[in-house]
Amino acid sequence: MSIKVYLNEDEIPRQWYNLAADLPSPPLPPLGPDGKPVSPQALAAVFPMPILEQEMSPNRWIDIPDEIIQIMYRWRPSPLRRAVYLEKALGTPAKIFYKDESVSPAGSHKPNSAVPQAWYNKQFGTKTLTTETGAGQWGSALAFACSLLGLTCKVFMVRISFDQKPFRKTMMQTWGATCVASPSTETAAGRSFLAKDPSTPGSLGIAISEAVEAAVSDPTGSTKYALGSVLNHVLLHQTIIGLEAKKQLAKIGINNPDVVIGCAGGGSNFGGIAFPFVSEKINGAKIDIIPVEPASCPSMTRGKFAYDFGDSAGMTPLLAMHTLGHNFLPSPIHAGGLRYHGMAPLVSQAVVEGLVTPRAVAQLECYRAALQWARTEGFIVAPETSHAIAVTIQEALKAKEEGKEKVILMNLSGHGLMDLLGYQKYLAGELSDYVLPQKEIETAEAELAAFPQAPIHKSGKW
Amino acid sequence: MSIKVYLNEDEIPRQWYNLAADLPSPPLPPLGPDGKPVSPQALAAVFPMPILEQEMSPNRWIDIPDEIIQIMYRWRPSPLRRAVYLEKALGTPAKIFYKDESVSPAGSHKPNSAVPQAWYNKQFGTKTLTTETGAGQWGSALAFACSLLGLTCKVFMVRISFDQKPFRKTMMQTWGATCVASPSTETAAGRSFLAKDPSTPGSLGIAISEAVEAAVSDPTGSTKYALGSVLNHVLLHQTIIGLEAKKQLAKIGINNPDVVIGCAGGGSNFGGIAFPFVSEKINGAKIDIIPVEPASCPSMTRGKFAYDFGDSAGMTPLLAMHTLGHNFLPSPIHAGGLRYHGMAPLVSQAVVEGLVTPRAVAQLECYRAALQWARTEGFIVAPETSHAIAVTIQEALKAKEEGKEKVILMNLSGHGLMDLLGYQKYLAGELSDYVLPQKEIETAEAELAAFPQAPIHKSGKW
Repeated sequence: MSIKVYLNEDEIPRQWYNLAADLPSPPLPPLGPDGKPVSPQALAAVFPMPILEQEMSPNRWIDIPDEIIQIMYRWRPSPLRRAVYLEKALGTPAKIFYKDESVSPAGSHKPNSAVPQAWYNKQFGTKTLTTETGAGQWGSALAFACSLLGLTCKVFMVRISFDQKPFRKTMMQTWGATCVASPSTETAAGRSFLAKDPSTPGSLGIAISEAVEAAVSDPTGSTKYALGSVLNHVLLHQTIIGLEAKKQLAKIGINNPDVVIGCAGGGSNFGGIAFPFVSEKINGAKIDIIPVEPASCPSMTRGKFAYDFGDSAGMTPLLAMHTLGHNFLPSPIHAGGLRYHGMAPLVSQAVVEGLVTPRAVAQLECYRAALQWARTEGFIVAPETSHAIAVTIQEALKAKEEGKEKVILMNLSGHGLMDLLGYQKYLAGELSDYVLPQKEIETAEAELAAFPQAPIHKSGKW
Repeated sequence: MSIKVYLNEDEIPRQWYNLAADLPSPPLPPLGPDGKPVSPQALAAVFPMPILEQEMSPNRWIDIPDEIIQIMYRWRPSPLRRAVYLEKALGTPAKIFYKDESVSPAGSHKPNSAVPQAWYNKQFGTKTLTTETGAGQWGSALAFACSLLGLTCKVFMVRISFDQKPFRKTMMQTWGATCVASPSTETAAGRSFLAKDPSTPGSLGIAISEAVEAAVSDPTGSTKYALGSVLNHVLLHQTIIGLEAKKQLAKIGINNPDVVIGCAGGGSNFGGIAFPFVSEKINGAKIDIIPVEPASCPSMTRGKFAYDFGDSAGMTPLLAMHTLGHNFLPSPIHAGGLRYHGMAPLVSQAVVEGLVTPRAVAQLECYRAALQWARTEGFIVAPETSHAIAVTIQEALKAKEEGKEKVILMNLSGHGLMDLLGYQKYLAGELSDYVLPQKEIETAEAELAAFPQAPIHKSGKW
């Protein structure tokens, strides 16, 4: 029995995969305040040009610079593991494989994009990067990447996570970054949200507004902003996960899995493992591909596919995506990384095209799944990851009912060692499920009607 | 450049190595209250017979049951990595390899003994295991192992660590264990220490007393005690680290390293990586083997080699070891796993034989080293591990001065993600070094004079 599949360092993929090149309908462009597609130049105050080129690239494959690969040797290639102990506990004929992205120094998949973003910024002359973070995974990852590349890093951390996870800040400081709770008094956006509600738990949308403002208001122009999810270039960088997984499955004689599962907050973890398989599906393979979101923040399963701001203050271009409205304030569940009102445009478009099928899961089922995982596989996972595990268990039990030897591939996005407060509350019986009232959905839809509408898709789906 | 060396699962060593078989002088036996060597039967209330047989075994090699190996597939074989980024930062010609034991579910090397101990106990009919934990690494590991094997687990955690690291308790609970601060009111030993000093920070010695008492006072006899370090069988189990490292170095053409380094609190992490190389040294290889201890708890560099109790209440047999006296209360440094008054008898005897050469390092140098590690290699290590890193840096700089391409092998005993309070205080400038006053050493020596004396060694060293 071999339950781990490794790749050698020289087997790391040398190119990222860009799903935008293969989607049946071309991606809908981000729109500016005038309702017209934004040019790269219009975003040049926010992102460096090499990143903007990737963001808008129509090319299927984009080379990974050698230097980036050498930095990522610290944890890549990541192992593909088989969850034999969970399989046994479930009595399922399914084979459950998981890509273990918790092995990076920051403990999640996030450095896969933090390192390229920091590297391209460094090449471009950027001195300081600002960013937002929810659970802290992305902020830690960017702090780590900036530390290696000699950049200054400033992180705006969603207040509720900042309070729940004080040691995330220490982790970022260990890598030399500074971290403040968001909304903060350091930006006009932050002060405005604090004025509205001094005790707001914050949100990713608000923190993005602050980080973007902090970047563009540096008069020297040497401060840029880095986003941890949502945008095309971030999902592009994360495809290294799925590309490695394909090679690893091939090593043990598996062409394609039957089911691919990843949790989805902004979409980078899901897109990272799924897009290379979405490509296979476009080319005819039969694969169930499932992005999993929290029932309390159900952008894909209950939100609208529409043009909306990426942040809460309306500083970003309008993105065509599944959204609960940029004014949506997610309930304070413990999966902080999934508390985002929108969804990556590329993931959203794959949903509309019917290439991936989202599923929402409530918090308590996720913690039950995480506990079963810890007591079989052994590892304590992040609350975000627990969403993927919950659906993995659902699918493994379905395979058992059907008597099918399905191959399930899951993305283990990160460990939960910085998120034990959630486990503590779950074990003490203090957590509950939250179902989003339909009224909030309707409010969001009414607000979204004011924006330019996404065009009708040839399939009639938009 | 390849910076990771993996083994396949079928290359995991199938036998543990017992240094007791090869020491130039036979190990000195533990003594009972009457001053005579204790029999296995005298300890049968504490440990199950298979563990006692290993503890007293004269055999060089002891088979590892297949079932134990299959449980350990979750994280073993662990990777051997090369610290190329640190090497470059130091400008050293030395090649620094480290065995990464942080990859286990519990985050340290401790499960290497927790799993075998839980497994043998399960075979023997034990229902409940009690134990102590300092920093929480061992308690977490035993909780994890008991969870997999269906045993109940009760952990007494040293008060200062319990307070500093509340989430260690959650981690143990996630694996189904219970954890109380020690000294507790649950045992006579605990109550007695609390009566003496209600605000005592506790110590490993006190927690051991409580856990042993809790085990032996179960009238059904189905509760046993498990120790995370010090004893022969624990160090035996940990030799899987060094045995794997030997195979991994051989894969890249290295016969023996020039220097082997591990931190040493009770000795299991150091013994685990070092003993297979101590064996090589006994057979003529030239290797510098360095156990590293805190300057504030210097059992090997300033303590006496003498018979002393393993715990603070005097419930254990007398062990021949380096000790600061069982009444010694270590200063509350952040490397909780190194706060122990004694040292494993096998390590102690290797010190006396001149096979290994201990070195003490102060806290601030260790945190400086850990920060340099985090900002080069990327990973945040445990405060215990930082002691090994500090000496690794010392040795790498020495190799630079000497212009020698030495091969240094270090044991990375665990990650520091549960220990960020120490980093926080270090970064805030709140930590200081503590040098143990000579008077405390003299007090301990006077107390130890009352015990049976260790015999004079043929070398004249004892």
